[in-house]
Amino acid sequence: MNIAVIGLGIIGGSFCKAFKLHTDHHIIGINRTPETAKKALEEGAIDEIGSAESLEKADVIFLCMYPQACVDFIKEHGGSIKKGAIVTDSSGIKRAICPQLEELSREFGFTFVGSHPMAGKEKNGFEASEARLYEGASFIITPCGAPREAVETLSQLALSIGFGQITLSTPEEHDRMIAFTSQLPHVLACAYVLSPSCPNHKGFSAGSYRDVSRVANINAKLWSELFLENREPLLEELIILANNVKNIIDAVNANDKKALTALLEQGHQVKQSLGE
Amino acid sequence: MNIAVIGLGIIGGSFCKAFKLHTDHHIIGINRTPETAKKALEEGAIDEIGSAESLEKADVIFLCMYPQACVDFIKEHGGSIKKGAIVTDSSGIKRAICPQLEELSREFGFTFVGSHPMAGKEKNGFEASEARLYEGASFIITPCGAPREAVETLSQLALSIGFGQITLSTPEEHDRMIAFTSQLPHVLACAYVLSPSCPNHKGFSAGSYRDVSRVANINAKLWSELFLENREPLLEELIILANNVKNIIDAVNANDKKALTALLEQGHQVKQSLGE
Repeated sequence: MNIAVIGLGIIGGSFCKAFKLHTDHHIIGINRTPETAKKALEEGAIDEIGSAESLEKADVIFLCMYPQACVDFIKEHGGSIKKGAIVTDSSGIKRAICPQLEELSREFGFTFVGSHPMAGKEKNGFEASEARLYEGASFIITPCGAPREAVETLSQLALSIGFGQITLSTPEEHDRMIAFTSQLPHVLACAYVLSPSCPNHKGFSAGSYRDVSRVANINAKLWSELFLENREPLLEELIILANNVKNIIDAVNANDKKALTALLEQGHQVKQSLGE
Repeated sequence: MNIAVIGLGIIGGSFCKAFKLHTDHHIIGINRTPETAKKALEEGAIDEIGSAESLEKADVIFLCMYPQACVDFIKEHGGSIKKGAIVTDSSGIKRAICPQLEELSREFGFTFVGSHPMAGKEKNGFEASEARLYEGASFIITPCGAPREAVETLSQLALSIGFGQITLSTPEEHDRMIAFTSQLPHVLACAYVLSPSCPNHKGFSAGSYRDVSRVANINAKLWSELFLENREPLLEELIILANNVKNIIDAVNANDKKALTALLEQGHQVKQSLGE
């Protein structure tokens, strides 16, 4: 198949490298900054530097830009897409993006299937991309009314490049769960490192500091867009978290060992019951 | 040297294994449950199962029990300790423990040097101990008035078994920094996994979830003791954190992209400036 990847950052770049490592598909890379596309070609991450015109030969298109930029790209170039081609995004939010791309798919005659690769790291750009970034990760698909065959094609493609599982979901469920699994840890990491103690941590820290603070090295522009496009579910999780922290503060403040032990034991039980 | 390790849990067991791996010292293991000491001997983690009487031949004694239990042990058995022997604890709190052990050192004629190995994991007991747990980690020493030679002996011992650095500190500084680097992440992890979304995370989660939730698999009894013996510094950090989370909640709630981006960017800057 001809596969076009639009946006060669960490997500798109990793898709290209994974396709080249695991499959014989022809990979077309499209990127706003030409230097990055040239670098990807030189490194063998793509077979061809594409432009909007190349879209007409793509069987599958991966949109790997900021969420709203994916929509804008299709608005501008949707007319060049081959009828019946599969288009997927890789946005970390789905309710704000999927309905727009579904509508555009009807306008331009392609098939839209939403997806979200559950992998990443605290670095950005093509330099941070890796052929094995998706190894064992979950590939979330929000079919959004796409025919079963298109969902199946995309699933097989994901499994062929190393994803460990496919999770089918609705945009609503996706956004609710992502608020907890991904957005909340990013809020916590940022809130955590803003303590005046943070700059002095060296010599006093170990794994707990490293793990909680890791994703504070955040792309502020991208994540503020992701947070604000998912306000309600994120606020809900934030308020639950703030309450749980407050309960612990109250127990510590009251020197109430029984209440404190019970709260910590609840956390322990959750992890135990999940086998983690 | 003859080294006695009292308490063969993850911390004490790892000391024993590291001494056997890296040094020729004679290791005496003392444990309340005899089966664990027997297992440690069978596995070659110790050279000898000791009792309170064995203390008289120990040149260095590592107390690796719950904080207050270290003090209670010395109160009961301090009379058996050789004059001039070095005794160190491994407690995660220092203000509540060091002055008591300093006083006991004067009573019984040994040399007390406080210490805290900055390593651990989300499992407990001798089964979880590892010869390489301390590899590259920081070994915090609170000299508490001990002679320079004793601090030097303990430092060399720590470096000889794989610790990567020695951090000298006061009990006050130690407790303030540990509230941030270690206690706060444990509070956050527990508060985090108490969200009703947590049990459904599989398929929707990746590294961020894993890292923030890891230490929620907590020893509730030990950590509630650690928290309550370090109330003021912990409360201070908890309140700073709660305020930082609240600022982010407010920005999300007000749909204020500028304020939100600025807050996240601050987090990013902290990590950048630390080179992390």
